[in-house]
Amino acid sequence: MRELLRVASTGAPVDLAAIDPRSTPGLPPGAGHGSHRKTWARGQVELIGAGLGRQQEMLFATAKVAAGPAAPASAPVAAGGHLGGDRPGRVLVVLQAMDCGGKDGAVKRVAGAMNPLGLHIRSFGPPTGEELRHDFLWRIRRALPPPGFVGVFNRSHYEDVLVARVDRLVPETTWRARYDEINAFERELVDAGVALVKVMLHISPAEQGERLAERLTDPTKHWKYDPSDLEARARWADYQAAYAEALGRCGTGDAPWFVIPADRKWYRDWALAHLLSETFAALHLGYPAADFDVERELRRLRDGGSPQPSERSEVNSR
Amino acid sequence: MRELLRVASTGAPVDLAAIDPRSTPGLPPGAGHGSHRKTWARGQVELIGAGLGRQQEMLFATAKVAAGPAAPASAPVAAGGHLGGDRPGRVLVVLQAMDCGGKDGAVKRVAGAMNPLGLHIRSFGPPTGEELRHDFLWRIRRALPPPGFVGVFNRSHYEDVLVARVDRLVPETTWRARYDEINAFERELVDAGVALVKVMLHISPAEQGERLAERLTDPTKHWKYDPSDLEARARWADYQAAYAEALGRCGTGDAPWFVIPADRKWYRDWALAHLLSETFAALHLGYPAADFDVERELRRLRDGGSPQPSERSEVNSR
Repeated sequence: MRELLRVASTGAPVDLAAIDPRSTPGLPPGAGHGSHRKTWARGQVELIGAGLGRQQEMLFATAKVAAGPAAPASAPVAAGGHLGGDRPGRVLVVLQAMDCGGKDGAVKRVAGAMNPLGLHIRSFGPPTGEELRHDFLWRIRRALPPPGFVGVFNRSHYEDVLVARVDRLVPETTWRARYDEINAFERELVDAGVALVKVMLHISPAEQGERLAERLTDPTKHWKYDPSDLEARARWADYQAAYAEALGRCGTGDAPWFVIPADRKWYRDWALAHLLSETFAALHLGYPAADFDVERELRRLRDGGSPQPSERSEVNSR
Repeated sequence: MRELLRVASTGAPVDLAAIDPRSTPGLPPGAGHGSHRKTWARGQVELIGAGLGRQQEMLFATAKVAAGPAAPASAPVAAGGHLGGDRPGRVLVVLQAMDCGGKDGAVKRVAGAMNPLGLHIRSFGPPTGEELRHDFLWRIRRALPPPGFVGVFNRSHYEDVLVARVDRLVPETTWRARYDEINAFERELVDAGVALVKVMLHISPAEQGERLAERLTDPTKHWKYDPSDLEARARWADYQAAYAEALGRCGTGDAPWFVIPADRKWYRDWALAHLLSETFAALHLGYPAADFDVERELRRLRDGGSPQPSERSEVNSR
């Protein structure tokens, strides 16, 4: 699946128009035809999802044992964006798409199959005042997953070469310089043991139109709609050109870009689950060996008998 | 369920010995008997979980619309522990238990039923050096869920009156003063619109012994075991006394403590799902009304036709 969805790392803009958003690359003949494929794919996502959960647990377990018994719980608040090359692995999924591209839905279905305790999901909107006072990668670094976690970026640093370019938020020299800055940053992540999975969910303008109409006609979806969505839609080709160049400039050998045709939600979820599964497989994870003497601990547990009956010493000391 | 599991807010230590960890308060007769109850409860957790997912979406949607269109995505990194009394609701589940009490399992099954995009889960271990240089509530404030999110604290500020007391990490005057500090802090949270759900998962020493033995005999669970677990187990009564006083001193009218008998995992998950469901119901959530003219937007969408065909202006300007 990785080979089928990966875009060439040539530096030249990716030809997105050549990728049909309704296509289903890699879908096996066994999936059947017509509406059967959807049922098949949904079932497969459940199956693959169970495997993702096991892989995620191994990743978490490995990081916990590597950190040692005295280490604090891997609380995200303690992450602070520090990276150490000798620390165990982590996974980071970077999700980008046009409005209505299905990022939220994909997270819900694919990340939702994993244990929420080991997920580190961050959404990036327009930068706050404090974020604007820093380099564009400042808020990204602060949001990196700690070792052992599966991170998901719902939008990312790529917005700084997408909306920043199309809406002319910064001069062209500024956003052009960011391609190299992004490549250097991602090189650093890869060297620190982060398995990067960069995914563009690729939809057609027609599909976006249908999904926007649905958000406008279903009152339980009004909250997902923003009038500015139509301004962005009007600049569809500008955005596609910005994506094409970003994917071409920042798709590297160790941090490739994948484009998932996303007009069909069931294919989108199946393909993303598959990509993640392949990413985990390449990490060759397993449950870590005990860093204590198992037999000795079993004896201690048995000999310990029942715990102390009362809090006598504590009461006496008051 | 809230009334059944809530402990009395008298200020006096809670009589934990009077609560049977194998009991199943509130389980309806329709659940059946023996192993049928487990099957029934697992099914109910799925059903309740689907409802929790809808409630969570309404909470998220309400916060998004209240923040206005120009607001940044509710990225947890931007939360910073600020609270505003006029901001919309959020939910915070505080989970405490002895080792093997089932916190992780409960999070996986109950929080796992919700959309991971709207969850804000934080685990607290022994404080880091930086955390020790601050007040004990410093790291807690930084980990609060942003508006619209469902937060889960896997351990919490209560560790500072539990392990800190039993292991004598601080003088008695220090941990004793914390009861009032915690009550003032939680008062502030409640006033700021945080729905607090404080839950102790209550297991028996025998059940803990079985679960520890399982962690020692199943190599895929070795990573969950720590030799220091047996030292804590040896001080069972001290911990129970510390819990009894913490729950008695910090169970207030607006921020009550609930004790869930947790020797039976299926009951534990069912009861927690039920508690959360009742918490959501009390918030009277709904999908927010559109803050834009729906008909006008539908016209704009229709009249917009197909998006611009090319990026001419951008190309010419280079």
